[in-house]
Amino acid sequence: MQINPERLIDDLRELASFGCYKTGVNRPAFSSADMAAREWLRGKMAAIGLDAVIDAVGNVYGRMDSATQAVLIGSHSDTVPFGGWLDGSLGVICALEIARCVAETGAAPFGVDVISFQDEEGTYLSFLGSRAFCGDDLAAEIAAAKNKDGEALAPRIADAGLRLRKPARLDPRRHTAYLEAHIEQGPRLEHAGRQIGVVSAIVGIKTFRVIFHGQANHAGTTPMDMRHDAGAAALAFGAALAEIVPPRGSKETVWNVGKAIFEPGAANVVPATAELILQIRDSSPAVLEDLARVIAEAAQASAARAQVAVEITGLMDTPPAVMDASLTGIIAQAAGEVGASTLSLPSGAGHDAMILAHYVPTAMLFVPSIGGRSHHISEDTTEADIVLGARVLLRAVELLMRGQAGPKV
Amino acid sequence: MQINPERLIDDLRELASFGCYKTGVNRPAFSSADMAAREWLRGKMAAIGLDAVIDAVGNVYGRMDSATQAVLIGSHSDTVPFGGWLDGSLGVICALEIARCVAETGAAPFGVDVISFQDEEGTYLSFLGSRAFCGDDLAAEIAAAKNKDGEALAPRIADAGLRLRKPARLDPRRHTAYLEAHIEQGPRLEHAGRQIGVVSAIVGIKTFRVIFHGQANHAGTTPMDMRHDAGAAALAFGAALAEIVPPRGSKETVWNVGKAIFEPGAANVVPATAELILQIRDSSPAVLEDLARVIAEAAQASAARAQVAVEITGLMDTPPAVMDASLTGIIAQAAGEVGASTLSLPSGAGHDAMILAHYVPTAMLFVPSIGGRSHHISEDTTEADIVLGARVLLRAVELLMRGQAGPKV
Repeated sequence: MQINPERLIDDLRELASFGCYKTGVNRPAFSSADMAAREWLRGKMAAIGLDAVIDAVGNVYGRMDSATQAVLIGSHSDTVPFGGWLDGSLGVICALEIARCVAETGAAPFGVDVISFQDEEGTYLSFLGSRAFCGDDLAAEIAAAKNKDGEALAPRIADAGLRLRKPARLDPRRHTAYLEAHIEQGPRLEHAGRQIGVVSAIVGIKTFRVIFHGQANHAGTTPMDMRHDAGAAALAFGAALAEIVPPRGSKETVWNVGKAIFEPGAANVVPATAELILQIRDSSPAVLEDLARVIAEAAQASAARAQVAVEITGLMDTPPAVMDASLTGIIAQAAGEVGASTLSLPSGAGHDAMILAHYVPTAMLFVPSIGGRSHHISEDTTEADIVLGARVLLRAVELLMRGQAGPKV
Repeated sequence: MQINPERLIDDLRELASFGCYKTGVNRPAFSSADMAAREWLRGKMAAIGLDAVIDAVGNVYGRMDSATQAVLIGSHSDTVPFGGWLDGSLGVICALEIARCVAETGAAPFGVDVISFQDEEGTYLSFLGSRAFCGDDLAAEIAAAKNKDGEALAPRIADAGLRLRKPARLDPRRHTAYLEAHIEQGPRLEHAGRQIGVVSAIVGIKTFRVIFHGQANHAGTTPMDMRHDAGAAALAFGAALAEIVPPRGSKETVWNVGKAIFEPGAANVVPATAELILQIRDSSPAVLEDLARVIAEAAQASAARAQVAVEITGLMDTPPAVMDASLTGIIAQAAGEVGASTLSLPSGAGHDAMILAHYVPTAMLFVPSIGGRSHHISEDTTEADIVLGARVLLRAVELLMRGQAGPKV
């Protein structure tokens, strides 16, 4: 079987026309552009003979009825506001092209099902589609979900005419594996000069709000040793992370202090409070737990030195999702057979595969992101890299279908 | 001569009734409460025989016409919004009481002039009154000055009926010295258990905006060594100040990072820019210059390590004002004769004396601030400390008048 490069790229370009914004796409979940794109996708799936539906939460699911077992392939077609043209769309259209190749050969009883999950980006509720597909009970979360403008999710589902639809569901007897292609959204492949990223795991993320509570004082009249300087504590703690994290983390560990706010925020007032938002990511739950402990100790130490108190609140805590070793081996093998260079790497960002991995053997491949850019209209990947990614994924599906290698299910 | 404690405290309490707010005072410059208080003050000065006027910018100036030479004593009666009852009012009422004592003894030809400067607090234009009194040409600044709500100063001066008034002016032939009593606004006297602060200098203040310019990147997908993390640079720089400043500063040097803002400010985005506002204070221009240099070097070093650029902008730059050594000696001597314990200390905050010191031999004394609090309705000083401050200042004036010691004019 062979990927048809023109057909693949044409479909990607056509999908990008829904919500087109300059060189990117503005297609948040449940926007009219998103729902129109999903209707178009459903038609494309139906055109190759799949039993294609838009389900109760907006997932577009195309089932190859001729097959009794299938590899599920897909990603998501919703975007962040004013995002890039590839992101999840790449994986959805690769899946469509692969299903088309399989349908054209009439292969059975082992086939390919295609899916575009809804709201991976969390416009209303992150991973809504993949979580619903895996059978999570989301009724309460859906009832409470709002977008950042305060608009509720439930009416959007109703407006889209989905309220009485049947949910599409993962079928463990049917779905032997889930495969997802995605852009890397980082610079590592480009930097290493490799063509295909074989994803080892999707990292876990712990997010903390660290608030130091001191006392506002006149910054001229209060001697340094009599201050309760929340800002000084925050600066010392934030800077210490570069010393504390690397020796305790893995070589993959990354962290970020993305937000800092000092109050009252005046030049001549010693900060009364200083808030930092800190994220740490790693593939290992043990590493994350250990880091959470040493980071809390460091915050306490910085607070004590600055004669202030500290309050650490865990915000989001997403566990790591390790990819299926057998499937990643097949992707690596497929890349070798297609002549693509590879790099094994963790995904620092979340993906639908993170949800699926808890229910079905799952693997991902990445194609390079030019300049590492994503979630921006400048996001791009060369057509050659896109086509190569689809070729590797098709070859992996062939290997699975021919039983030359199989996942440990 | 003897301070009349009841009269002193009664006057202070009566002044505090103008703009009274809970236990404090809300009397910003040119508010109706401020102008009413100034009219009351003018009347109090006139009542003891001074030639008292409200001048072209709102200064209340009481001239002891019977004297050919005079010590000028005063402070300011405007407050910050919802400030304390003492602050500048203490120095104004001490001056009034001392002039009253001198007037009662009929001392001549050496007398006391009393002043309450306008807008020391910078509601419209910091040190408006003392700068105008010292002959600064403020026409352009007055025309441009606005309060934080965007209301212009010029109409307020006109509304107060001051537009055609004569300015009161420092007279170098008449005014042999300027003396100012003030609350410490810090905890040092209380902490040291001393009653009178003999101010050595009013520190200079350099304020810098330090902006690190990096690149926003996904905090999960971008390896640490490929980031251009403006936030990490700011944290490292801010924390390094505690290592850099003390060995190069004097033992009086204080600094403050009062503001920190990271942009875009999201947990999962490496900060593209990070802004800190930094202030350093010291009595020595050489120390301040040296610190500005090493701080700029440290910012560059932190920026280089984080692979970002840094932009340092000087905001406010107020030179130190050293107090007249002979006058501070007289205050110390007066304190000794009155039996008050003293502490020599720099003023970390600005005062009208900072302006006057450039034109006339100037000295200040501080009384203790309970808990170091100021610019807040909880600001307070014990009545005993207030009275003692006035006694010391009166004794210093006596020493000056009797020529037992005199400033090097």
